[in-house]
Amino acid sequence: MRESSVTIHDVARHAGVSAATVSNFFNWPDKLSERMRSRVETSVTELGFVPNMPARQLRRQRSGIVGLSVVNASNPFFAGIATAVEQVAEDAGLSVVVGSSHESADRQEKFLTLFEQLRFDGVVVAPSDDELEPLRQRRDRGTPVVLVDHEDPDGRLSSVSLDHREGGRIAAEHLVTAGRTRLLFAGGPEGVRQVARRLEGCREVVSGIAGTRLEVARSADLDLTDGEEMGRWIAGLDQDERPDAVFAGNDLHAIGLVNALVAQGVQVPDEVAVVGYDDIPFAARAAVPLTTVRQPIAEMGRAAARLLLDEISEPGREPRDVVFPPELVVRASAP
Amino acid sequence: MRESSVTIHDVARHAGVSAATVSNFFNWPDKLSERMRSRVETSVTELGFVPNMPARQLRRQRSGIVGLSVVNASNPFFAGIATAVEQVAEDAGLSVVVGSSHESADRQEKFLTLFEQLRFDGVVVAPSDDELEPLRQRRDRGTPVVLVDHEDPDGRLSSVSLDHREGGRIAAEHLVTAGRTRLLFAGGPEGVRQVARRLEGCREVVSGIAGTRLEVARSADLDLTDGEEMGRWIAGLDQDERPDAVFAGNDLHAIGLVNALVAQGVQVPDEVAVVGYDDIPFAARAAVPLTTVRQPIAEMGRAAARLLLDEISEPGREPRDVVFPPELVVRASAP
Repeated sequence: MRESSVTIHDVARHAGVSAATVSNFFNWPDKLSERMRSRVETSVTELGFVPNMPARQLRRQRSGIVGLSVVNASNPFFAGIATAVEQVAEDAGLSVVVGSSHESADRQEKFLTLFEQLRFDGVVVAPSDDELEPLRQRRDRGTPVVLVDHEDPDGRLSSVSLDHREGGRIAAEHLVTAGRTRLLFAGGPEGVRQVARRLEGCREVVSGIAGTRLEVARSADLDLTDGEEMGRWIAGLDQDERPDAVFAGNDLHAIGLVNALVAQGVQVPDEVAVVGYDDIPFAARAAVPLTTVRQPIAEMGRAAARLLLDEISEPGREPRDVVFPPELVVRASAP
Repeated sequence: MRESSVTIHDVARHAGVSAATVSNFFNWPDKLSERMRSRVETSVTELGFVPNMPARQLRRQRSGIVGLSVVNASNPFFAGIATAVEQVAEDAGLSVVVGSSHESADRQEKFLTLFEQLRFDGVVVAPSDDELEPLRQRRDRGTPVVLVDHEDPDGRLSSVSLDHREGGRIAAEHLVTAGRTRLLFAGGPEGVRQVARRLEGCREVVSGIAGTRLEVARSADLDLTDGEEMGRWIAGLDQDERPDAVFAGNDLHAIGLVNALVAQGVQVPDEVAVVGYDDIPFAARAAVPLTTVRQPIAEMGRAAARLLLDEISEPGREPRDVVFPPELVVRASAP
């Protein structure tokens, strides 16, 4: 792909100037008149030309760097993905730099532009939202891109993801089978594909059972602090209003939630059972060991890195999707 | 600083070629003969010339990016540092990319070279080891560099650190005051300055008390898995050989250690008291809530980012050191 992309000569032809002028535009813009600068700039923009890296990179064609854009590298789920990507990349002689979008599409865009301008060998992205077009365009321009924790409904990007509907289903089935009848889904915004799928899975199970209800509560950030806040809110509800089971958006949220419930004198799991999502290393080591839907984090990270290495060595190959099954891990918080 | 650094014209003069030839060297090396390439390359290396970023960066002088090199971004201590640096940088309109050295000086060097070549606005480094010369040289060449979790004994780099000797002292005093007489220091390699300081602090306390001993056990990685391994080893010792108190290198290690001790039927804290280091968010939420030496992680990250912003806006300013005091947080693992 990279070989067929726009060259400095295409820009020169398009702008009706010499290649040397285009070179000056990039290296010593002050040498050009304002008029000439804007003429070259227009062609650069229209053709989508990305200037080359410094010589060392150019001569060996590859930067030796993989970019990783995740939602939040402080979340142990993404930290685990990053560590796994680093291990596989390192074995292939590549370094990894990581940016956290914190769910901001702008920030993700900034990282992607940077990674592309610097001619990184490829990028792995856990997208900030469902808008994948900027990612697809970058792949079309020659930067290998692999999604992790997200699929591409158009099938234009390789991806590693989990069957989240099934994840929602097995969590709900476990709670309902244990006799719980008032379920609360404590998740992030439903607009996020992964969350919407889990909720669908929950609904499928609950809707088939008379006398069982499912409510939804939103949380701005799926972290410990927000989990604790939601736990205090649940503890403050009247007994007959209170859910007897919570399915939390991730393990951090669940651990915070359990912590606050216990601190407020609510028995976990007797009064409220709690199921998390991810199975981060701390889930098993929390004050109340956490029942959770396990995502095989390290395997997912490694699979994403391997897909990327394949795309780097064989540009333009057909996108592939690797879908992992979720797995329920039963511990004390919801036996 | 940056204004006074080596220019492409210096390289041209040094190599006895035109500036255009140096430009070609960086942009179209194939245009030059092998002899000419090697001539320019020699001058570039001897003068320490770093080629410029693509035009957009060059024209606004700054890349808008801060580089962060930490030992391991998956460790909640460094993840907390990263989040705090991101927040301060974001408020100043800068993005942050993060690399994990995993204690490899080579990998750290790779990141630093990359950050410098890409003309990042500045870098924050939690060093992989005590060798700071490469960092000092980069600052001398005009890239603002701030240390975090480490000081510069030569005073040439700004730094944010903690008084680790005091940290070792307060942990040991707490254990000794509680009547513990057989202390085990479970740390990383003593060659690491931070660890050596904590051990010094411990020794100062223990050496003043007759009938109290201090032994040292090393751990390759200060993580949950290694902590669990050490916990199993301690549980397997004869009663009279076994320490009655452990001061662990960090909280991850301590949490793993407590977990394994409890799983093997050793009572924590009755038979073995355990003190961690860092006060990561999970310390308070572990199965046995952890007594630990608190590092003010978010404050340290923010302080490092602020020092860096100061150096960016006022290049060449005098290095400053911010030293935080440690604080003992007493919980169930060592009351």
